[in-house]
Amino acid sequence: MKTILVVGIGTGSANHLTVAAIEALNRADVLFVPDKGASKSDLAEIRREIIDRFVRKTDPRQIGYAVPRREAANGDYEAGVADWHAALADIFALLIADVPAEGTGAFLVWGDPGLYDSTLRILERVSEPVRIEVVPGITAIQALTAAHGIALNRIGEPVLLTPGRRLGPVEMDTVVMLDGRMAFLEADPDLEIFWGAYLGTPDQLLVSGRLGDVAERIVSTRTSARKRHGWIMDTYLLRKPE
Amino acid sequence: MKTILVVGIGTGSANHLTVAAIEALNRADVLFVPDKGASKSDLAEIRREIIDRFVRKTDPRQIGYAVPRREAANGDYEAGVADWHAALADIFALLIADVPAEGTGAFLVWGDPGLYDSTLRILERVSEPVRIEVVPGITAIQALTAAHGIALNRIGEPVLLTPGRRLGPVEMDTVVMLDGRMAFLEADPDLEIFWGAYLGTPDQLLVSGRLGDVAERIVSTRTSARKRHGWIMDTYLLRKPE
Ligand SMILES: C[S@@+](CC[C@H](N)C(=O)[O-])C[C@H]1O[C@@H](n2cnc3c(N)ncnc32)[C@H](O)[C@@H]1O
Ligand SMILES: C[S@@+](CC[C@H](N)C(=O)[O-])C[C@H]1O[C@@H](n2cnc3c(N)ncnc32)[C@H](O)[C@@H]1O
Repeated sequence: MKTILVVGIGTGSANHLTVAAIEALNRADVLFVPDKGASKSDLAEIRREIIDRFVRKTDPRQIGYAVPRREAANGDYEAGVADWHAALADIFALLIADVPAEGTGAFLVWGDPGLYDSTLRILERVSEPVRIEVVPGITAIQALTAAHGIALNRIGEPVLLTPGRRLGPVEMDTVVMLDGRMAFLEADPDLEIFWGAYLGTPDQLLVSGRLGDVAERIVSTRTSARKRHGWIMDTYLLRKPE
Repeated sequence: MKTILVVGIGTGSANHLTVAAIEALNRADVLFVPDKGASKSDLAEIRREIIDRFVRKTDPRQIGYAVPRREAANGDYEAGVADWHAALADIFALLIADVPAEGTGAFLVWGDPGLYDSTLRILERVSEPVRIEVVPGITAIQALTAAHGIALNRIGEPVLLTPGRRLGPVEMDTVVMLDGRMAFLEADPDLEIFWGAYLGTPDQLLVSGRLGDVAERIVSTRTSARKRHGWIMDTYLLRKPE
């Protein structure tokens, strides 16, 4: 059986790599490197830096693959995701077919493979039976709280992680990810926000304060950075003031 | 001003160390190594292994410090924690006084410093002004999902992180930490559970399945492991079946 390593590479800095991740990349015969299109070429650049700096093995083959666009316009979110996963599963099947018998392939996954990432779910759809091993990585959540020098949770209190499109009234400390529509604009202005974009990269941006006071600054920072880079990845923590 | 590095070291394996964490430990003049008492000496052992394997600088001084016991018997949880933090802040002040002027001290923090850890909050209470830098680390949550080979979240769905004593009816995918009283025993038996103990260590234990079917096995596994080690750290994900 082939082994497929699903390796978390952290969220923007090659220094997020763990010793286990470096070891995994060096164990692989084949490295699968996604190419999310020219606009996110900075991300491809970080993956390349990781491989150049840490892969000492001389023979792993790198196989790039194009990630199909998800039909964002599709009104039905779940059906859109299912179609997208099906398309990716076909691509993954071809990539895995390229791994030598009894050999090892590795997917480089942004952040941690368990957090809002579909690699594991897509691998489940591939019919060739493979042994899957997951190597954890630093998430955007940890990069956010570390950059702000804060704890994620209040003492003994729960925390909610949510995609932007599912943000409702904030009843506890809440981390919002995958938020294209700036859901914070509809939240209580008396909340505190800790916002971060391009976390871990040299372009990291941070804003924090009372939401009502800083929301406009986040919108303008976000808009101009997005124009400059051609893409943005941002996340934030919302919480009631102490 | 002195610099205090708050370095996440992961949750049980020296291989969880990130490149940034290794760099931070090598930058420090002084390393602060907690000693949680003989019963958790396996944890002290992992910290020592990390220092032996990764700190190449020859001169960092290691300063061990005893962590006072929190009064668990105290009925008022918040007051108990506040007293404990106050006691630790006095200890931290002495540790920091030992850092050379303009020098750097580093706390080795289990997992990620942002997740259910009090180091940052205690440092806020120390009156000597210091520059604080946080280095993110792999959390028990990532170690749990990686070990089970699963995603933390369902597609596009939120996730709740909670201490055991705050677990209520499970309305979404829920990770329970800090659970001394096995709160899962009161949860709906039709939920799925993914349980893990000593994650990342050679003693890692995993159980998963329908809660009603595996709860007894978790209780007995947990009880005997705890007796064997003298301590246990476990965490789990509860979710409704697909
Ligand atoms: C598809 S999810 C992947 C999350 C990733 N697996 C992780 O562990 O962080 C992408 C979302 O993560 C967040 N994100 C990832 N990297 C980020 C970064 N460097 N800065 C800010 N947010 C980031 C953003 O909310 C983005 O919409
Ligand atoms: C005080 S919290 C510290 C969490 C840590 N900062 C982190 O990032 O994971 C301790 C709790 O974390 C969980 N935990 C930490 N390490 C663990 C391990 N190796 N295996 C299982 N659970 C662990 C347990 O729920 C434990 O009660």
